[in-house]
Amino acid sequence: MKVGIVGVGLIGGSIGLALQERLGATVIGYDPAEAVSVEALRRRAIGVAGASAAEVADGAELLFVAAPVSALAGAIDELLALAGPQCVVTDVGSTKRALVSGRDDERFIGGHPLAGAETSGVEHARADLFEGATWYLTPGPGTSGVLYERLHKTLAGIGAQPTAIDATDHDRVMASVSHLPHVFANVLVAQAARALGDGEQVPATGPSFRDATRVAGASATIWPDIYLSNRDALIALIDEAQGRLSDVRGALEAADRGAIERWNDAAREDRDALLGAGLAGGAVHELRAAAPDRPGAVAEIALALGRAGINIVDIALSPARDGHQGVVALWIQGEEQAQRAIATIDGLGIPVARP
Amino acid sequence: MKVGIVGVGLIGGSIGLALQERLGATVIGYDPAEAVSVEALRRRAIGVAGASAAEVADGAELLFVAAPVSALAGAIDELLALAGPQCVVTDVGSTKRALVSGRDDERFIGGHPLAGAETSGVEHARADLFEGATWYLTPGPGTSGVLYERLHKTLAGIGAQPTAIDATDHDRVMASVSHLPHVFANVLVAQAARALGDGEQVPATGPSFRDATRVAGASATIWPDIYLSNRDALIALIDEAQGRLSDVRGALEAADRGAIERWNDAAREDRDALLGAGLAGGAVHELRAAAPDRPGAVAEIALALGRAGINIVDIALSPARDGHQGVVALWIQGEEQAQRAIATIDGLGIPVARP
Repeated sequence: MKVGIVGVGLIGGSIGLALQERLGATVIGYDPAEAVSVEALRRRAIGVAGASAAEVADGAELLFVAAPVSALAGAIDELLALAGPQCVVTDVGSTKRALVSGRDDERFIGGHPLAGAETSGVEHARADLFEGATWYLTPGPGTSGVLYERLHKTLAGIGAQPTAIDATDHDRVMASVSHLPHVFANVLVAQAARALGDGEQVPATGPSFRDATRVAGASATIWPDIYLSNRDALIALIDEAQGRLSDVRGALEAADRGAIERWNDAAREDRDALLGAGLAGGAVHELRAAAPDRPGAVAEIALALGRAGINIVDIALSPARDGHQGVVALWIQGEEQAQRAIATIDGLGIPVARP
Repeated sequence: MKVGIVGVGLIGGSIGLALQERLGATVIGYDPAEAVSVEALRRRAIGVAGASAAEVADGAELLFVAAPVSALAGAIDELLALAGPQCVVTDVGSTKRALVSGRDDERFIGGHPLAGAETSGVEHARADLFEGATWYLTPGPGTSGVLYERLHKTLAGIGAQPTAIDATDHDRVMASVSHLPHVFANVLVAQAARALGDGEQVPATGPSFRDATRVAGASATIWPDIYLSNRDALIALIDEAQGRLSDVRGALEAADRGAIERWNDAAREDRDALLGAGLAGGAVHELRAAAPDRPGAVAEIALALGRAGINIVDIALSPARDGHQGVVALWIQGEEQAQRAIATIDGLGIPVARP
C-alpha cells in the first residue's frame, strides 16, 4: 500500500512510523517546513520525502493531512484535486464540523485521533502512539464504502480504535470532554491568582487544584485555533454551564441542603457512568449486513453503531460490486454489544444476521 | 504534654499517633461513637480512651476538635467551657469564618490541616499524615501569644507547616483552590453525561477530562457541609466565574482571536505563578520582634507573615512576662523571605531585628 502524509510532525510522523512498521506500507511524506521533512526522513518516519503535495498524492491509495487546524481546509482541497479516484483523503484535526460540511467528496473522510495532545514535533513521534486510542471518523452521506473500509482497516492495523461519529456530535462531545474543561481550567487559575496574593503559591491542598488546572493555558500554537474552530459548540456548552452554576448558586443562597446533596450525588453517578470500568470484553462476533445499493450506506451503519457506543473491531465489504454496495461484515466484541448492533442496524431498515 | 482529642477518626487518630510518636505526648481521646474510640485505642492512636469530653479536657494543655464540620461549633464551645485557663482549643474544620466569628475566647485558635481529604476512618490514620502539609491557623485579635506559640510548635513538631491566615481569607482561598474546582468538576460531568449518550463512556481523550473531574461527586458525608458552611465565599466565586465565562463567550462569539490568545496566555502565566516550583530553600534566619504589651500582637505578626506568603519555621516567646508580651523570636527560611519578614513586621509598627 502506498500512503502519502502531508505534515510530518508528531501525528504525521507517528502515522508514518506505524504504517511502515506494522503494515509494511510505502510512506511518502511532505512538510512545508523542509527541516521537518529532513528530520522525519532521518528518523525513518517516512520512507521518501516528497518535494510537493503533488508528489505525495501521485499513486497514493490513502492520504493523511496532519497539518495545523488553520491549514487543514486548504491542504485537504489541494489533495482532493491531486488524488486519484480511488484514493482516501483524511485529516487529523481536533474539530470536524466546519471541515466536513460542504466537502462531500466521496473520497474525503474526516478523522481525529485522540492521542498526542501533550507534546509536538516529529522528534516525539512513535509507532505506538495510537495503540488503543479512539480515532474518530466522520464519514458523510456520500462517503464511499470501499474507501471507508480501507481507512478503518488501516487505522485498526496501526492499533487505533476507529469510531464513526457525526461531525456535529463529534464537536459537541469534544467541546464537553476537552474544550470546556480547558476553559474551566483557565477560569480557575485566573480566580485563584486573584484570591491569593501577588507571588503567593497554591498551598499543598492535595491533588485537586493541580489536577483541575493541569491544562490551563494550553499550547498557544494549538488551542486558540481549537477554541475558535469549535466556537459554536463551545458557546452552547458555556451557556449550559452558566445555567448549571446559577442553579448551584441558588441552592447555596437558599442553604438548600437537599438540593446540594442531590446535585452532588448526581455528579457522582454521572462520573461513575462516564469514567467507570471499561466495557466488558468478550468474544468477537461476526455480523453480516446487506449494504443497500446506494452511496453512504456503510457510513450510515458505522455512524449508527458509533452513536450507540458500539465498537467495530473490524469491517469488511464483500462482495463490493461497485464500491457502494454488497454485504458488510462487521466484527463486534461482546455478546451484549453484538445484540445491540443487530438491533441498531435492523432499526436502519438494513437486513442483518449472524452468518 | 497532655493533649486531648475529641473525634478520633482519620484526622484525630493521625494527630494522636504523631503526637505520641514524635513528641512523646500523653494523648487521651474521646469519640461519641464508642466503636471508634475502641478502635483508636487498639491502634494506639490514643493512649487512653476517655468516657466523655470532660475527661478529655481535664488537665489538658491542648485540645483538638476533629469532628465533622456540622458538629464543630458545639464541641468547641463545650471544650472551652471545660478547659483550663492555659489550655489551647483548636479544630480541624475545612471552613473557618463561621466558626471563628464571635468566638473570641483567647484560648481558641481555628485550624485546618490540608491533608487526608481522600480517605476517612481511624483505620487509615498514620503518624506522618501531616508531614510537609500546610496547617492553616486563624488566630483572632484576642488570641493569647503563649497559646499560639504552643500550638505552632506542636504542629511543626508533628511535621506540619503552620501558616496563619485571616479566617475570611482562608475561606476565600479554599473556595478558590478547592471548593470551586469541586463545583466545576460536578458541572463538567453533568454536561458530559448529557453530551454523550446513555451508557456511553468518555472516549480515551488523554488525561484532561479524567483529571478535571477526579473530585466530581465528592464524599456525601463531607462535601455538602463544606459547600454550605462556605456558601458566601463560594457564591462570590461563582459570580466571578460567571463573569469570566461571559467574557470568553463574548470573545468566541466575536471570533476575536487576539482576545482568546491573551486570555489563554494569561492563564498560562497564572498557572505557572500558582503552581511553579516551590519557594527556594536556604538557611534559616532568626528574627526578634518586640511584641507589644497587648493581646493579639503575636497573632497579628503571624497573620501578616502568612498574608505575605512567608513561612514561619519556628516561633518562640521570650521572656513571656504575662502571656501577652515579650520578645518574639521567629525563624524564617531563606534570605529573601527573612528580609521580607523584617519589612512586613516593621510595617506593623513593631520593632524587629536580627539578633
